[in-house]
Amino acid sequence: MAKLGALAEIVGGELVGDPDLEVNRVAPIDQAEEGDITFLANPKYLKKLGDCRASAVILPPGIEAPVTAGIVHRNPYLAFAKILTALTCRRPESRGIMAGSYVSPSASLGAGVTIHPGCVVGDNVTLGDGVLLYPNVVLYEGVVVGANSLLHAGVVVRERCRIGNNVIIQPSAVIGGDGFGFAPDGETYCKIPQVGIVVIEDDVEIGAAACIDRATLGVTRIGKGSKIDNLVQIAHNVVIGENTVIVSQVGISGSTEVGRHCTFGGQAGVAGHLKIGDNVMIGARGGVSGNLEPNQILSGAPVMPHRHFLKVATTLTKLPEMRKELNQLQGRLQELERLLAAKE
Amino acid sequence: MAKLGALAEIVGGELVGDPDLEVNRVAPIDQAEEGDITFLANPKYLKKLGDCRASAVILPPGIEAPVTAGIVHRNPYLAFAKILTALTCRRPESRGIMAGSYVSPSASLGAGVTIHPGCVVGDNVTLGDGVLLYPNVVLYEGVVVGANSLLHAGVVVRERCRIGNNVIIQPSAVIGGDGFGFAPDGETYCKIPQVGIVVIEDDVEIGAAACIDRATLGVTRIGKGSKIDNLVQIAHNVVIGENTVIVSQVGISGSTEVGRHCTFGGQAGVAGHLKIGDNVMIGARGGVSGNLEPNQILSGAPVMPHRHFLKVATTLTKLPEMRKELNQLQGRLQELERLLAAKE
Amino acid sequence: MAKLGALAEIVGGELVGDPDLEVNRVAPIDQAEEGDITFLANPKYLKKLGDCRASAVILPPGIEAPVTAGIVHRNPYLAFAKILTALTCRRPESRGIMAGSYVSPSASLGAGVTIHPGCVVGDNVTLGDGVLLYPNVVLYEGVVVGANSLLHAGVVVRERCRIGNNVIIQPSAVIGGDGFGFAPDGETYCKIPQVGIVVIEDDVEIGAAACIDRATLGVTRIGKGSKIDNLVQIAHNVVIGENTVIVSQVGISGSTEVGRHCTFGGQAGVAGHLKIGDNVMIGARGGVSGNLEPNQILSGAPVMPHRHFLKVATTLTKLPEMRKELNQLQGRLQELERLLAAKE
Repeated sequence: MAKLGALAEIVGGELVGDPDLEVNRVAPIDQAEEGDITFLANPKYLKKLGDCRASAVILPPGIEAPVTAGIVHRNPYLAFAKILTALTCRRPESRGIMAGSYVSPSASLGAGVTIHPGCVVGDNVTLGDGVLLYPNVVLYEGVVVGANSLLHAGVVVRERCRIGNNVIIQPSAVIGGDGFGFAPDGETYCKIPQVGIVVIEDDVEIGAAACIDRATLGVTRIGKGSKIDNLVQIAHNVVIGENTVIVSQVGISGSTEVGRHCTFGGQAGVAGHLKIGDNVMIGARGGVSGNLEPNQILSGAPVMPHRHFLKVATTLTKLPEMRKELNQLQGRLQELERLLAAKE
Repeated sequence: MAKLGALAEIVGGELVGDPDLEVNRVAPIDQAEEGDITFLANPKYLKKLGDCRASAVILPPGIEAPVTAGIVHRNPYLAFAKILTALTCRRPESRGIMAGSYVSPSASLGAGVTIHPGCVVGDNVTLGDGVLLYPNVVLYEGVVVGANSLLHAGVVVRERCRIGNNVIIQPSAVIGGDGFGFAPDGETYCKIPQVGIVVIEDDVEIGAAACIDRATLGVTRIGKGSKIDNLVQIAHNVVIGENTVIVSQVGISGSTEVGRHCTFGGQAGVAGHLKIGDNVMIGARGGVSGNLEPNQILSGAPVMPHRHFLKVATTLTKLPEMRKELNQLQGRLQELERLLAAKE
Repeated sequence: MAKLGALAEIVGGELVGDPDLEVNRVAPIDQAEEGDITFLANPKYLKKLGDCRASAVILPPGIEAPVTAGIVHRNPYLAFAKILTALTCRRPESRGIMAGSYVSPSASLGAGVTIHPGCVVGDNVTLGDGVLLYPNVVLYEGVVVGANSLLHAGVVVRERCRIGNNVIIQPSAVIGGDGFGFAPDGETYCKIPQVGIVVIEDDVEIGAAACIDRATLGVTRIGKGSKIDNLVQIAHNVVIGENTVIVSQVGISGSTEVGRHCTFGGQAGVAGHLKIGDNVMIGARGGVSGNLEPNQILSGAPVMPHRHFLKVATTLTKLPEMRKELNQLQGRLQELERLLAAKE
């Protein structure tokens, strides 16, 4: 529970109405009840406000709306995120090293850490202040986890990998598994030891069952603020820039370098040893097989400008018809050629 | 081991031959030995019956076959499933709370539960009668698991999610990880807390390493009787109807609603905020980017009627040839135009 | 640390320079420093050798290079792998059954096994000599793991599955989850018990969060020396031949048989009940929906010869243009037909 005035201050928005109004919950416009705050992220839902039972509304500037209490903010969706955080996210109190966890005597633990049952913290691991390990997290020897990072149940971080501050890792993600490297030796394959590490920079989030492989030599790096969804594969020696967003089930092959502030739609795939510039947006299922200049919106496989892709996708369904038309044209042309030849 | 007559009764089929015949095992037609029961799901394998050493056969009505013992059933494949269940599935006896598991004192446990070593059962968790948790299952606070549900090793269910009765979850599936929601704030992203839950209804099966994300607000729901394969991604606020089948590596994006009795082939993908009607069947790799009316069979990306897709796929391989033909036609046409112009 | 002469002997290469030269590390050509050995896998990087600070170089025969110390080897990449192994891979000493692990009294353990905290080793499990289980590995009853195999944290192997010798399994892989088999019973589905097993032969590597499902009846088999990457799905009753390589996020559907020495690029998909011959190479994203003869390089969906696929992919982006040209041709042809008709 919070007061509307305090929330307006938290988000840096303009207060409308009573600053002492109590707000309990955030709710979507069509489910909100008394005591809730809702948000109008898109003006097209404006008419829904008439029936809305919310006590307060977050809305963009310049909207004519029958709102008696709320917060005006240039980015209502962002304000929604911040208010939801303020109302719901209370970090659990530290519970220390709980019974049933296994912490190496050589591990170094910051203040206020919590280590749930079933966790295994290896030799020479370093945990920053406030680190929270949910049950059954495994940190191999030499792992470093920065302050206030939160690792959910079943996460595995292999030897010597480094996790920054304020990182969130969803359940069962695997950081630092061996890269997929084998040297052909006739019919068989010889394993190439993967002796590099993974570095996850500050403020990154990694999804459930996502896999970030360690480098063969050197570093696989996930840049500051990047967000990686569930079941994503990041191969060895990949470098992801800052604030890049990678949606579920994407695969990025070995040694590829991705720029800052890129976005990859779900199930996209990127070949190895490529350079992708900054601010590149790849649509869902996009297949990238060459280097990409910055500042592009691309889709399809192979990727092409998104607007062109939409035309290609539409035309694709007409292929059998085009095949038939081509045949007909050929017939008609032959007939014309025959007629003209006859006239000679 | 069971008697043929008893098996016929279990499946509701018509007994052929000696009801006291002992059946030990179910085996495929070409591997069956004496003491086995086999099944003829497809009449085209009828001739294999001649060499088959099985002691009994499950077969559809109206088949002329040299069978002296067996069961006639309208759906031999279903009868096979039920007989295999009768012969092989013996639920292990309850072993209670085993040493090496961690169960919160505030958890409420039904009769006959089994909690293997390494499990962590959080505060205020409720387990129905007969729940079976294999090793290293983690249930966060407030989780509810219905009667007779079976969670395999390494499954994680996050806070407050609700699992129905008779649910089976394969190893390392993640239920209730945070949805992938971030509000852009200039170059960086602000995490949107994911405070909703996941509800898995009765009789659902979830595959290994599948990920079902919790809702931002509200509920991500998997309808009664639905079956979800390994490595499937179900995003936040998705609603899946009853008896829908989702094959491995499919991804369904946020807030999409899927109807009853749909089927998604492997590696299919569905965009967010869509409505898919009942009885829709999407082929492997199908890409769904718009709403879909019920009762359709679709394939391709973008999806199109399956029969049309087969034509498109065939024509696709002829594209370079079509490109060449188009060029030739253009040449021939130009020549004709030239000829005609010369004649004017 | 090792001496250059000893390394030349290990890889079976020809020594250049001082056999007593000390080598500490393997490093890429542009990162190598004094004391390092580097490798020239591709002659096109020859000119980089001028600036390279490495103390020794692995290079192919017949190269004119200013190298005073190194190893000449017909396959520098293979030699690199072997030298990296020699310099970095020291198997940890056996630590026995560590506190916090749960080993059934009926399990049979070879000499020199290590069982980390949080592991659960079920009834009648057999571990060969030198088996290494990292934390939180779960082996259900009756599992067999061959000598010197290494299972990383969180791996789950379900009942009765058999893992060969010298197998490496990356974190959180799931071996022996139930195959996805359900018999339709009107609107609902009846689970088909999956009572077969998985057999992983010697020298296989399995990636993080990969899923290899147990057979319905019989065996799902991964042939000797095969390498399977992260997040791959192998369905029930699949048989993979020897030395086949399957890159990340590939899915292979039920009962398909894959030959020896095949390669599947990332995100490829294979339908069920197919036979793929030996030495077949499928490009990334390839979609296989029919049987395949041996000794082919294929790409695309549906797969086609790789060189043809490259043409198709290029032409695909020109589809809207082709559609437009077709329309224009039609117009021009109509005009010609009109002209000719007018002349009759």
